[in-house]
Amino acid sequence: MNPVVMKFGGSSVENIEKMQAIAQRIIRKKADGYDIVVVVSAMGKTTNQLLDLARQASVNPSKREIDLLISTGEQVSISLLSMILNENGQSAIGLTGFQAGIKTSGLHTKNKIEDIDIEKVEKHLREGKIVVVAGFQGLNQEGDITTLGRGGSDTTAVALAAKLNCRAEIYTDVEGIYGVDPRLYPKAKKIDMISFEEMKEMAFLGAKVMEPRSIEIGHRFKIEILVASAHQDTVGTLIKEADPAMETKSITGLSISERVILVTIHHLPSQSRHSADLFIKLAQNEINIDMISQTMTSDGYVNLAFTASSEDTHLINEVLMEIQKKYENVVVTTDTNIVKVSVVGMGMRTQSGVAATLFELFATNHIDYKLITTSEISISYTIDSALKDKAVHLIASTFNL
Amino acid sequence: MNPVVMKFGGSSVENIEKMQAIAQRIIRKKADGYDIVVVVSAMGKTTNQLLDLARQASVNPSKREIDLLISTGEQVSISLLSMILNENGQSAIGLTGFQAGIKTSGLHTKNKIEDIDIEKVEKHLREGKIVVVAGFQGLNQEGDITTLGRGGSDTTAVALAAKLNCRAEIYTDVEGIYGVDPRLYPKAKKIDMISFEEMKEMAFLGAKVMEPRSIEIGHRFKIEILVASAHQDTVGTLIKEADPAMETKSITGLSISERVILVTIHHLPSQSRHSADLFIKLAQNEINIDMISQTMTSDGYVNLAFTASSEDTHLINEVLMEIQKKYENVVVTTDTNIVKVSVVGMGMRTQSGVAATLFELFATNHIDYKLITTSEISISYTIDSALKDKAVHLIASTFNL
Repeated sequence: MNPVVMKFGGSSVENIEKMQAIAQRIIRKKADGYDIVVVVSAMGKTTNQLLDLARQASVNPSKREIDLLISTGEQVSISLLSMILNENGQSAIGLTGFQAGIKTSGLHTKNKIEDIDIEKVEKHLREGKIVVVAGFQGLNQEGDITTLGRGGSDTTAVALAAKLNCRAEIYTDVEGIYGVDPRLYPKAKKIDMISFEEMKEMAFLGAKVMEPRSIEIGHRFKIEILVASAHQDTVGTLIKEADPAMETKSITGLSISERVILVTIHHLPSQSRHSADLFIKLAQNEINIDMISQTMTSDGYVNLAFTASSEDTHLINEVLMEIQKKYENVVVTTDTNIVKVSVVGMGMRTQSGVAATLFELFATNHIDYKLITTSEISISYTIDSALKDKAVHLIASTFNL
Repeated sequence: MNPVVMKFGGSSVENIEKMQAIAQRIIRKKADGYDIVVVVSAMGKTTNQLLDLARQASVNPSKREIDLLISTGEQVSISLLSMILNENGQSAIGLTGFQAGIKTSGLHTKNKIEDIDIEKVEKHLREGKIVVVAGFQGLNQEGDITTLGRGGSDTTAVALAAKLNCRAEIYTDVEGIYGVDPRLYPKAKKIDMISFEEMKEMAFLGAKVMEPRSIEIGHRFKIEILVASAHQDTVGTLIKEADPAMETKSITGLSISERVILVTIHHLPSQSRHSADLFIKLAQNEINIDMISQTMTSDGYVNLAFTASSEDTHLINEVLMEIQKKYENVVVTTDTNIVKVSVVGMGMRTQSGVAATLFELFATNHIDYKLITTSEISISYTIDSALKDKAVHLIASTFNL
């Protein structure tokens, strides 16, 4: 067997005409000698329309019933695409999540794939069929239909590829992964090859092409993931295990997170109990903290700063009001007029001076940053929103992204 | 347990507002102390819209994929109705055909229920839940999703009631079963109670409220079926096993079949081989024959007449042309300007004179009939279309239908 998994998102299957176009693409791949598994999402805006109906039915609809409802979207796609493939002389079969043996666990609407009984798919592949699997869904141990949450169809595709030990090809509206978002930097270059570590870092730091969870699965099972255009026959970006040749480039990508709030708490008592209390309160309010930075003041207090999504501003302010009541001398400031600029590259691990080049670049060009955090292969800065374009152009041109 | 199965069709669940109305009805029934299983169809015209998509996808879509496609319709209904019931303080759970343990066999789009693993539904009932089951669908031995064809949701409801040994309540747009179609005879009376034998006969003879197959299941498992209005709290019609009290009425109902073709073959040789050849040819062309009547002529030939659906006129004419080629002296006539009037009643079995009253009625009022067939509890006449209303009014008023 020579399997490959091809995944197409909602905009690629939004009507019969578009499905006919991707059918031709699938048939060409089949003619190249592949045993093909196709994973599809729901047509266009179907999932949102179904969720609208759910909101009409109930103020707070049961998540189990939401899964039962929205999973119909992919079922419609797989049956129609299979019909189109059959109409074109192929032998194709549509399989829902449970028919494809996808077993999940966890909370409804946010399930994880636990395992795949891949024998069900392999049987059809051995019979020469194109197997069209509903993305985003599975069946849990109780026999309930479940969905996988954001990026769920990518996860289905990569998990199937992991079980078949083959490549997952994710077809999207973009031509691949770019070092910088082309909307921010029109001269941005598509990346031909990127390591899982870098891709995960970029995904976590705000690049929206793929969700970190499917990259994580690909990485764990050491398969390759191709991200390519659904509309054109261009090369795309191959995500794979790092090899020495890939590490010559010091910086692979740059990503920007907007809608960020920066909170600084000045003059907090220095015992770790105090900052712990703050973060526990934030967590209880389901506020996700992104960057955290703390420094000591000369008089034995600390200045503590963190960033979060500006969507949580209201909740954050409530927590901050409690803090100010509790500590007389504390001063709290917030700033939503900022963005986070993150620079990612495996090169940072081995090449010295990458960080130094960045600091020098910022200094020479008068870009002040408020908070810095680093990981093994990335550095993130928060800067004033007004400086976003300037920073993006400087970094992208300096590192040839 | 005190179970009951309530079935609502597509027009009762065509939008959230209508679903909210039937939810109130279900909740009232639950308050009366019942353990409730609800069976629903797809919302309004959903099934037809999905079939339109299938026709866009393929000239001759695979029936397996059609089942996969259209079964999503009921899945949407069960999840939304469950949400609405939950919103109203009930504990409700939606189950697809396979989740409700409905096992089917046969041809795709025309499956039959083979068995129901009723333990799955009973478990939820024991936990006090309202169980909302998708009508019209099941799972076959190969693990494919199947649908049950025309009247499929009624079949699901009655089969579930048979397994639970309880009553099936079929809620429809009409108030129950009428002795005569109220559109033909405005003074028509709703029947309060009717035997399975009479109901089956009426369904086969053209009354369209319920399909014969679900009545057959109800009869076999000796459960009661109530047919009642989905919109009003009126009494409806109870279909149940015949009891002596029910047989006092000589005639229960009258049904009319329009779009009938009457074929008469005059002067066919009398050996049974000849009529057999004719009916075999008709069967090979998938023409369903309804009434058959044969008489001898004085010179040793036979006159053979039969009726069929006028939709098959074209195919029938082809067969008749062969007949005329084969037999020199045969004369063939066809007539599509006729209707079939059928009178049904258990009373015919025990009360003499019912047929005589009918013949007398027709004779006195100059209604000529062309073909007559009888079963143990029915008589059917073909008459000229122009005499339809006159015949309906005479029979309905004479027998107080």
